[in-house]
Amino acid sequence: MPAQPSDDYPTTNGSLNRKLRMALVGGGSGSFIGRVHATGALLDNRAELVAGALSSNPERAKKSAPSYAIPEDRAYTSIHELVEKELARPEDDRIDFVSIATPNHTHFEIAKTAAEAGFNVVCDKPMTFDLPQAEELVKVVENTPGVFALMHNYTGYPLIRQAREMCLNGDLGEINAIRSNYIQGWLREPLEETGQKQASWRADPGKSGAAGAFGDIATHAYNIGRFMTGCLPEELSCNLKSFVEGRKLDDYGHAVVRYQNGALGTVTASQISHGHENNLYVEIDGTKASLVWRQENPNEMWVRQNGQPAKLYTRDPNAAYLSDLARNSCRLPSGHPEGFFEAFGNVYRAAYDAMIARSEGTSFQGRSETTRDTLYPNVYDGAEGMLFVTKSVESSEQNGAWVSLKTDYARR
Amino acid sequence: MPAQPSDDYPTTNGSLNRKLRMALVGGGSGSFIGRVHATGALLDNRAELVAGALSSNPERAKKSAPSYAIPEDRAYTSIHELVEKELARPEDDRIDFVSIATPNHTHFEIAKTAAEAGFNVVCDKPMTFDLPQAEELVKVVENTPGVFALMHNYTGYPLIRQAREMCLNGDLGEINAIRSNYIQGWLREPLEETGQKQASWRADPGKSGAAGAFGDIATHAYNIGRFMTGCLPEELSCNLKSFVEGRKLDDYGHAVVRYQNGALGTVTASQISHGHENNLYVEIDGTKASLVWRQENPNEMWVRQNGQPAKLYTRDPNAAYLSDLARNSCRLPSGHPEGFFEAFGNVYRAAYDAMIARSEGTSFQGRSETTRDTLYPNVYDGAEGMLFVTKSVESSEQNGAWVSLKTDYARR
Amino acid sequence: MPAQPSDDYPTTNGSLNRKLRMALVGGGSGSFIGRVHATGALLDNRAELVAGALSSNPERAKKSAPSYAIPEDRAYTSIHELVEKELARPEDDRIDFVSIATPNHTHFEIAKTAAEAGFNVVCDKPMTFDLPQAEELVKVVENTPGVFALMHNYTGYPLIRQAREMCLNGDLGEINAIRSNYIQGWLREPLEETGQKQASWRADPGKSGAAGAFGDIATHAYNIGRFMTGCLPEELSCNLKSFVEGRKLDDYGHAVVRYQNGALGTVTASQISHGHENNLYVEIDGTKASLVWRQENPNEMWVRQNGQPAKLYTRDPNAAYLSDLARNSCRLPSGHPEGFFEAFGNVYRAAYDAMIARSEGTSFQGRSETTRDTLYPNVYDGAEGMLFVTKSVESSEQNGAWVSLKTDYARR
Amino acid sequence: MPAQPSDDYPTTNGSLNRKLRMALVGGGSGSFIGRVHATGALLDNRAELVAGALSSNPERAKKSAPSYAIPEDRAYTSIHELVEKELARPEDDRIDFVSIATPNHTHFEIAKTAAEAGFNVVCDKPMTFDLPQAEELVKVVENTPGVFALMHNYTGYPLIRQAREMCLNGDLGEINAIRSNYIQGWLREPLEETGQKQASWRADPGKSGAAGAFGDIATHAYNIGRFMTGCLPEELSCNLKSFVEGRKLDDYGHAVVRYQNGALGTVTASQISHGHENNLYVEIDGTKASLVWRQENPNEMWVRQNGQPAKLYTRDPNAAYLSDLARNSCRLPSGHPEGFFEAFGNVYRAAYDAMIARSEGTSFQGRSETTRDTLYPNVYDGAEGMLFVTKSVESSEQNGAWVSLKTDYARR
Repeated sequence: MPAQPSDDYPTTNGSLNRKLRMALVGGGSGSFIGRVHATGALLDNRAELVAGALSSNPERAKKSAPSYAIPEDRAYTSIHELVEKELARPEDDRIDFVSIATPNHTHFEIAKTAAEAGFNVVCDKPMTFDLPQAEELVKVVENTPGVFALMHNYTGYPLIRQAREMCLNGDLGEINAIRSNYIQGWLREPLEETGQKQASWRADPGKSGAAGAFGDIATHAYNIGRFMTGCLPEELSCNLKSFVEGRKLDDYGHAVVRYQNGALGTVTASQISHGHENNLYVEIDGTKASLVWRQENPNEMWVRQNGQPAKLYTRDPNAAYLSDLARNSCRLPSGHPEGFFEAFGNVYRAAYDAMIARSEGTSFQGRSETTRDTLYPNVYDGAEGMLFVTKSVESSEQNGAWVSLKTDYARR
Repeated sequence: MPAQPSDDYPTTNGSLNRKLRMALVGGGSGSFIGRVHATGALLDNRAELVAGALSSNPERAKKSAPSYAIPEDRAYTSIHELVEKELARPEDDRIDFVSIATPNHTHFEIAKTAAEAGFNVVCDKPMTFDLPQAEELVKVVENTPGVFALMHNYTGYPLIRQAREMCLNGDLGEINAIRSNYIQGWLREPLEETGQKQASWRADPGKSGAAGAFGDIATHAYNIGRFMTGCLPEELSCNLKSFVEGRKLDDYGHAVVRYQNGALGTVTASQISHGHENNLYVEIDGTKASLVWRQENPNEMWVRQNGQPAKLYTRDPNAAYLSDLARNSCRLPSGHPEGFFEAFGNVYRAAYDAMIARSEGTSFQGRSETTRDTLYPNVYDGAEGMLFVTKSVESSEQNGAWVSLKTDYARR
Repeated sequence: MPAQPSDDYPTTNGSLNRKLRMALVGGGSGSFIGRVHATGALLDNRAELVAGALSSNPERAKKSAPSYAIPEDRAYTSIHELVEKELARPEDDRIDFVSIATPNHTHFEIAKTAAEAGFNVVCDKPMTFDLPQAEELVKVVENTPGVFALMHNYTGYPLIRQAREMCLNGDLGEINAIRSNYIQGWLREPLEETGQKQASWRADPGKSGAAGAFGDIATHAYNIGRFMTGCLPEELSCNLKSFVEGRKLDDYGHAVVRYQNGALGTVTASQISHGHENNLYVEIDGTKASLVWRQENPNEMWVRQNGQPAKLYTRDPNAAYLSDLARNSCRLPSGHPEGFFEAFGNVYRAAYDAMIARSEGTSFQGRSETTRDTLYPNVYDGAEGMLFVTKSVESSEQNGAWVSLKTDYARR
Repeated sequence: MPAQPSDDYPTTNGSLNRKLRMALVGGGSGSFIGRVHATGALLDNRAELVAGALSSNPERAKKSAPSYAIPEDRAYTSIHELVEKELARPEDDRIDFVSIATPNHTHFEIAKTAAEAGFNVVCDKPMTFDLPQAEELVKVVENTPGVFALMHNYTGYPLIRQAREMCLNGDLGEINAIRSNYIQGWLREPLEETGQKQASWRADPGKSGAAGAFGDIATHAYNIGRFMTGCLPEELSCNLKSFVEGRKLDDYGHAVVRYQNGALGTVTASQISHGHENNLYVEIDGTKASLVWRQENPNEMWVRQNGQPAKLYTRDPNAAYLSDLARNSCRLPSGHPEGFFEAFGNVYRAAYDAMIARSEGTSFQGRSETTRDTLYPNVYDGAEGMLFVTKSVESSEQNGAWVSLKTDYARR
């Protein structure tokens, strides 16, 4: 059945010589993203899930534990209990990192608590409920010893990484335009009024933050454009809409982004486009070449140059035309589809490498100005994401006025 | 070899009982669009090309005539000579209509001259060089007896017409969003400096008008969104860019359009996107369904509704699920690709029907308020297009400020 | 609206210095392919349709004439009347060629009559009712002065011609495999019992010949594989099926073809595949590269080589990577879709060039062994096609036994 | 980031109340499929990998163990050592099942040894080296208590399962045609001569068996057609080719398959098609509808009916139009791509359910005639697959003669 052989991808933790121990916060029954974190984190057999605070409801926390194979005595009900009891365990039987898969409004406290207890943290996005929390979290992370990775999972796709390398290497020339779109349809009806769990917290300003679609998905679209091109932002103009009657947050929105190098960007996000599933796509125009990538078929990317046939790059661990990074981000031969879990797994893998570096005393993100450029999205990316959301709302409230996006958080 | 039978499409001129006689202005050697007009106009054998003013250069005008099978004595060198000499011929040997396929800055005079001489006119777009000319041309057309059709050729595609009928019938519910994109790459290099004919006049503000990409292609993208949905415009905010060094007009631009019903629209136009050929695509979101159509494969259109498989509508003269109009706009069975010429042919066909109505004394566009809703794009659409271009430039010069797009020209 | 300029394609008849005069046989009301011939033949304005025998029913023949703008006095009722009356006209007002668009069983007599009267002939496929007729027609054509072109229209697509040139140039290396498929669904129900005109004659062995789907569409699929690769056939094994109850001819079938160079081919034809419209696709494997082309999107062709990104060739009159022939077969810039009519037009164009060569006394196909290699499919291709159909039926009747396909008709 | 919520998929082992314990045979460094088995088996956290015989080379067996987190004392060097030492452990610390990911020629002995020791077995395909071994293995499995699952991984894709249910439910009507294709290019060059591990054993008749491409991939293509439709085979005619010079086994082949209900099938397999990665695609024609599915984008399937728009079914745990089985086979919301690992995981999941049934004393495949219809491919499917390969070679050696495929192994 197999086709081409794949390279051996990293499947051990090197000098650590054991699996990393994971605790999951969030992920109780009805959760979607908790399960994805668990699956992605364990994909390479480099980590084991040993503890959790799956729900703040004690009964549900216990009840959910078996489905993650978490032993009963490590099924906690809060980050505080988790931190206290894990710290009480001998060091060689203690968790290494906490994964946060809860609604947005709880991220900050959980992340801060875990980081200050010395644990490494992998946090879902958006990083915090609002910008002040994000700014404070940057300081927390800068002053604690752990790794902090933000789950912008799409950066884990091998071809997104390929795109980044092509842009940074100059293969596309100067970047002129970035068109990012994230089109979904699942909130076309007011699902939040039916008690559907995913919809309810996302449509609740008290849990989701100041933005709906823009916080949930436009952040991804913006982040992917930034990750791929490294273009630094200057200012934006935004229009948010709430098309479903009674909805409190935007379910559709559009931002124009001006970049410092003169490039013009657009970010469109929709949750009300009938039948669109998870249609994230990005188009980049450079002076030397253009790119198009679509998340729903992530194993392909179009590369075009005038005068030549369009080229379809594929995820391929053996392709000499791909970068080392892109090739090493593959687990399977080309033509054997990888997907969403593998992208999560790749972000985890990058975070694990940093955790091991930490255990070895090597520097990594968070420790200094010069190590900001991590492969995994980090706390600065998270703060920039919150800035993007905050400024988008601010611009929209001012009828689309230009607002500055300049920030020290932004990194190539 | 054939597959399903096609319906008989209209192939005669009914009561007129003869072919319509066409004169072509523009289209001399090196021209692209003149040949397309000639081919589209003659596609159904309902017209014959009998006269032309193919070039203002007398030698070239004569030399180009044989390639159109235009007899030497009707190969004129200007619209004025053409009008004068054709009017001098007996009525039953005189042209019926003039097709204008010249650079933008000459449209107005040619159209006005032909219309005032009583001839029907089919004019390429954009309709005029600037908005005042467009406004004057509206008055000319309203006060002359002829048909005036504007070649927004993409409205001739059967599935674009299907989309329009679905929107107007309410099949999509209320329209919330219109995303129109027209992405090309052919002006990535400063072709205008090489003397390339198509590029030279398009990049010259004295010939093309105040806008480059926005006049040439964003007008199409905007028009298609308007034609499909019938949503009336309220205001726009625009950002134009000129990425190629030394270029005088925009080669990239983006407009946000607010519609009167609250819908949010975007129009993106590029001439600098490597390897993109003629990538016009439109996405419509309604409360009941969504649509996606791409010009490069015009025989297909996606229709999506939550909870159902995505449906691929195809151009099909026999499909009961398509509207009469869409079916009657087909010349071939489904699966037998139609293309660009056929769309031109369909706009011509609609104009011919109006010309025959005129000959029969029946009313048609231009004669009254109530007959503005023609199947072919008309002078009001042309004036609205010029308004769109003018306001886009105005907004862009004011850093993307909102400017009104409200106008009496706009029709559903 | 336009994009890249197109080259000027041939639009005159050179030394002939006038339009060629066409007569259409078949094409009366209800006909599909007659209209396609007329449209394709006139597409470049190099011919005019001046006479016809649109129906053997005199009333219908007269009634159909206006829709083709054929004058009443040249609306004949049979090829015999047509030939007689046209020969009676002065030479400079006489037709140049006859296009045959009638059911299969009538092709031979019409073609023979026209050829023996000295007229050029363009005949729809399959060439004749059976193989003996085909063999006789070869002799007729070899002994008469006219051009004989067979309408294997798909050979007119620019990218099919590109494929042929790549194969013959060795760009694909040695050809190993040819997979041709022609999948339709329109005869899923017994339409022939409803009186539907297209279905009735196709399902009638007395009109269609010994094969149904294999005569109607497998011939195209086989021909395209032969045209693209130039591989010479050795033998075939075939299985024909008639899945619709009561149907007298095959509506599904499959042949394995062995080529003289060792390549293995397959030809699959279906008329009973729900929802498939005109899904002709061909896949070629060579030792150096592979190709995939699909008729429903004929402006694209995949070219693949191990270790490189897949390349999407597009129909493009300006692409340096395409052959001269492919580029000259385009009428429109890339991205401006061409389709079915243009492919017909290209076969007609090649035939016109031969007709003009004839008028100039230059040699062309039919005149000698050495001029068999015409761009338009010729009488030898037609005879080979009839051999393919005949042998397919023979093999199928012998439970798929191997039967020889070797023949002198086959040309590269 | 997430979109629609997913259903909770099974994540526990129910009454077993612990993870299943897995041993992996094969999978040493350079192996491709061993890693895939490990990843798929552990995907849902329902199993743990605790032992292995990763290589017959003792040094390599030890060296490979850490990359699977297999403890040193359970890193065995043969199935015999593995069985002996595992049986020596207390029952509650003993493996539950053995996964076999070695070259074909070793499957039989490993499977037999494990089954006879009472362990459950998951075996890669093809099941054995030759048909006699397969027939013997059927008897072994019928006379031992364990579950035996064959890794026809493609049957794990949710939409393949949907297709099966649609066919068996009659949604497609009577099945007329099955076209299965498995097109790869990776063996275009004689990789086996370079020592490339994957190529070497596959091209060696002593390790791979009597067939090359037909054993490796045509078996999958045949199996998928059988699994989707349930049509029972009657006979086949096959042509195998070896296009690469010096290659001992087929690298290209084609079989025509006649089914008992009159359907006509074709199976095409290639390893020499430049740039084709893992292009497995299947087309099914029924009297009521048709299907098309492509492995490289497994989250989509086309369903077509005449007179209706083509429908694109997507993998969607919430889609009411999908079967329960298809929905329960999803781990992620629609639009969040799943791939190759998840399909493996689904076959493992079905096998786990049977292993738990076994532990509960419930009947399952292997125990009786009436329980042959397992969701996971079983020993009968494996025997039928070996029959298919054997008969294909036999037919090819007899110039494509028809040979019987009738067998008691075949199940709907």
